[in-house]
Amino acid sequence: MADTKTNAGNFFEDFRFGQIIHHATPRTVTDGDVALYTALYGSRFAVQSADTFAKAIGYPKAPLDDLLTFHVVFGKTTPDISLNAIANLGYADCRFLKPVYPGDTLASTSEVIGLKENSNGETGTVYVRSTGRNQDGQIVLEYCRWVMVRKRTKGSPAPEAVVPKLPDRVDPKDIGGAIPPLDVAKYDFELSGSPHRWSDYEAGEKIDHVDGMTLEEAEHQTATRLYQNTAKVHFNQHTESKGRFGKRIVYGGVVISLVRALSYNGLGNAFHLAAINGGRHVAPTFAGDTIYAWSEIIEKAEIPERRDIGALRVRMIGVKNQDCAALPLKTETGEYAEGVVLDLDTWLVLPR
Amino acid sequence: MADTKTNAGNFFEDFRFGQIIHHATPRTVTDGDVALYTALYGSRFAVQSADTFAKAIGYPKAPLDDLLTFHVVFGKTTPDISLNAIANLGYADCRFLKPVYPGDTLASTSEVIGLKENSNGETGTVYVRSTGRNQDGQIVLEYCRWVMVRKRTKGSPAPEAVVPKLPDRVDPKDIGGAIPPLDVAKYDFELSGSPHRWSDYEAGEKIDHVDGMTLEEAEHQTATRLYQNTAKVHFNQHTESKGRFGKRIVYGGVVISLVRALSYNGLGNAFHLAAINGGRHVAPTFAGDTIYAWSEIIEKAEIPERRDIGALRVRMIGVKNQDCAALPLKTETGEYAEGVVLDLDTWLVLPR
Amino acid sequence: MADTKTNAGNFFEDFRFGQIIHHATPRTVTDGDVALYTALYGSRFAVQSADTFAKAIGYPKAPLDDLLTFHVVFGKTTPDISLNAIANLGYADCRFLKPVYPGDTLASTSEVIGLKENSNGETGTVYVRSTGRNQDGQIVLEYCRWVMVRKRTKGSPAPEAVVPKLPDRVDPKDIGGAIPPLDVAKYDFELSGSPHRWSDYEAGEKIDHVDGMTLEEAEHQTATRLYQNTAKVHFNQHTESKGRFGKRIVYGGVVISLVRALSYNGLGNAFHLAAINGGRHVAPTFAGDTIYAWSEIIEKAEIPERRDIGALRVRMIGVKNQDCAALPLKTETGEYAEGVVLDLDTWLVLPR
Repeated sequence: MADTKTNAGNFFEDFRFGQIIHHATPRTVTDGDVALYTALYGSRFAVQSADTFAKAIGYPKAPLDDLLTFHVVFGKTTPDISLNAIANLGYADCRFLKPVYPGDTLASTSEVIGLKENSNGETGTVYVRSTGRNQDGQIVLEYCRWVMVRKRTKGSPAPEAVVPKLPDRVDPKDIGGAIPPLDVAKYDFELSGSPHRWSDYEAGEKIDHVDGMTLEEAEHQTATRLYQNTAKVHFNQHTESKGRFGKRIVYGGVVISLVRALSYNGLGNAFHLAAINGGRHVAPTFAGDTIYAWSEIIEKAEIPERRDIGALRVRMIGVKNQDCAALPLKTETGEYAEGVVLDLDTWLVLPR
Repeated sequence: MADTKTNAGNFFEDFRFGQIIHHATPRTVTDGDVALYTALYGSRFAVQSADTFAKAIGYPKAPLDDLLTFHVVFGKTTPDISLNAIANLGYADCRFLKPVYPGDTLASTSEVIGLKENSNGETGTVYVRSTGRNQDGQIVLEYCRWVMVRKRTKGSPAPEAVVPKLPDRVDPKDIGGAIPPLDVAKYDFELSGSPHRWSDYEAGEKIDHVDGMTLEEAEHQTATRLYQNTAKVHFNQHTESKGRFGKRIVYGGVVISLVRALSYNGLGNAFHLAAINGGRHVAPTFAGDTIYAWSEIIEKAEIPERRDIGALRVRMIGVKNQDCAALPLKTETGEYAEGVVLDLDTWLVLPR
Repeated sequence: MADTKTNAGNFFEDFRFGQIIHHATPRTVTDGDVALYTALYGSRFAVQSADTFAKAIGYPKAPLDDLLTFHVVFGKTTPDISLNAIANLGYADCRFLKPVYPGDTLASTSEVIGLKENSNGETGTVYVRSTGRNQDGQIVLEYCRWVMVRKRTKGSPAPEAVVPKLPDRVDPKDIGGAIPPLDVAKYDFELSGSPHRWSDYEAGEKIDHVDGMTLEEAEHQTATRLYQNTAKVHFNQHTESKGRFGKRIVYGGVVISLVRALSYNGLGNAFHLAAINGGRHVAPTFAGDTIYAWSEIIEKAEIPERRDIGALRVRMIGVKNQDCAALPLKTETGEYAEGVVLDLDTWLVLPR
């Protein structure tokens, strides 16, 4: 029989309220990661693409795509938080707080902020606040996530239920910390690829991002390994062939990144993802699926003490295997429409 | 109905003779792009592979593969020039003028140098001269391209026809600007992998490059996104499944890069692609195709005032799903032979 | 007919005992290669992942994964040594001698240390000692390999047989040169992801590494091209479709890297592969196969004059398309069990 030095992951009983977990494998992010990120999603926001563009407006150099930071910080949490998860239930209060640059080293910790056993006695919901820090200990990213985790033993004693109160949306005053003061006069709207600034968008506006991108197994696996995410369902066809779908499931973060990259076409100056207010992976995505996206501007906010930038609260919808001309979202009975895979409530920042 | 902030691309009526277009999304190229370029094509030219080799002969460090520069500069032009293109008709007068190094930022502009409506009133040919510049504004690359573009409205008024006169070949005196003065005594023909220098090749010589490389969807998509090329036919299986071929079409630049990488076997010291005199994508390439290549030396030229290097005009032929032992090119009736996918007329530079 | 400037590779008759071959195309390894290595295998050893972690214990920055160095050095030998090989028969005495960092340039040489014609007169075994050096000429890696190579002409005269005596195992005193003196007090066993140090392992211990990873064509091709390995069987479906297996064969080094990455789960502090005592690719691997791994600790050794680190001799077994709960290895009749693809005898180094 084999040794037990391997990581079996945590079960519901293993989590304690208030517990702080230092996740393994800090990660220096580099120009190599940036190139791979571009190659995997085709993102075209000028600030992240060109040192010259970033420097002109006030960055020391081009920062990382915010979602690359997110995926790296998130990936580290998977061996401890979600190895025995059945479902990733939701996100809230995700805030990008400091810019990250090639050469920075990211590490993650999580605090258990809630625990609630399910009535079946077999599973429970674990709420964590995960924090990404750079090599100087500065918090670059913070977000809450809740996952349904298996119990090791059905009916084993459960902790007292604690369900954290999470904000519906990030307050606009908490937005923009990851953006230095910008010299907007130097922001070149021709080079950025879109003439539309913050003031050109209105609440209620809907944008079909038009383009579609087909996903391959080698692509989502490569992306997910880059983030050192260890969730088994993304990588193992031998076991997944006997599983619920008969095939590997694409890491939800890959879909988020694709939707964000597609949104460039219509939101080309929304160069910074400042916050994720909430999010839901509505349906699984598989290799061979073609991802489309559309967005609705649901709120427009000034950022206190910032005259250079403004925020748009944008609901980004990811759809598979149908274009978004009809802006698919819900059916008449209120369920998500066929094909919708992602419903993401974000704050995006644009120059004013 | 959705908003119209998305880029619908330009139609034939949108172009004006003499118009200058500043393309979006400048791009800092890095070691990450270089690694991906090697991983995607397997190129082995020593000058681009090793800083030590490049420095020994006179470069400050290893320059980018010329075609990586080409693809990045070209990719930026696609949203403005060829989003509504039916066909990429040809290239001419493509000259690589300055070396590009990791850390440089590339941006592209295009000038409309010709316009000619087709007699059907539905399409027209647009001729552009596209220019890639580095962060100092120096021109690193210039080339002409003509594409057939849809009209927005059949029968709408067309501009007066202007067809530019383009050179059949780049003059050898315009070659070599991207190569510093070389200390050829330090060029190690053992480390470069081939004993053959410029003087060892003769006009009329034909070289079967022997090796073949099979293309996968994940590979050509990854490459094409790396260049931020947005042409839809490369990425969207959902729409292409209903299209002419029922599948995604490989970006022609991927085939050019593969043929160039394969040509190392036989032209191992032809370390610099100095010019593309003309080129034609004879037939489309798809995932699953295996690319082979052969070359004919069609001219040999000294470069004025350069005793260190010489130029070979090389016609590079890309072929799919058959080896090149028989040097396939044209049939008896003058059409391209079955399997030929690329016919590229280049100037290559070798040490003398 | 085509020219013969292409490399036909060496046949058995072309090798001479004592011959030294300088392999082509030195290669500067960069952050880009490191990112791709992570993306291709998902390795999570903290020392190679984070500059901060590496610096804390005594490295100037994060070194390359040892196997990335191996593959790059190995790749350069393929055009000269194994282009006409029928089989890669074995490895021995492989020692990693100096750390390699992004920015270093690697070059390879090989010495022919043995030659033995096979009785059929059609093939022979070539033994080489291959050496990887950095830009300062320091040896970073040395290993012996023997391959079965075709003769150009059946029955042509063969050299006198010389079979080198190769060590069964690398002596522990020759281990550790690639590791600077470590400040183990600064080695963070929480961030490294495993509490187990050298003293926690015992000879005889067996570890099922649990996880499995499915391989795609685009992934192994991308990896193998990154190493500029030119062996045809990995890349050409057009010819392989008519070959023995009807499909492309995965480069054995890809399987070694996957097994090593999977072994993190159970050997998370075995951060340095110091030596490969011997190795055998038991069966070929193809795209679509899922790789699993298990290990046996077969010896435990102190390293002379090193109180910071200790060595474990670990036999790593790669298995395809079945998990390793049963620790598959040999059948009752002594043959390798169904599914075993790799049997690798290594020295791994852990903090004490």
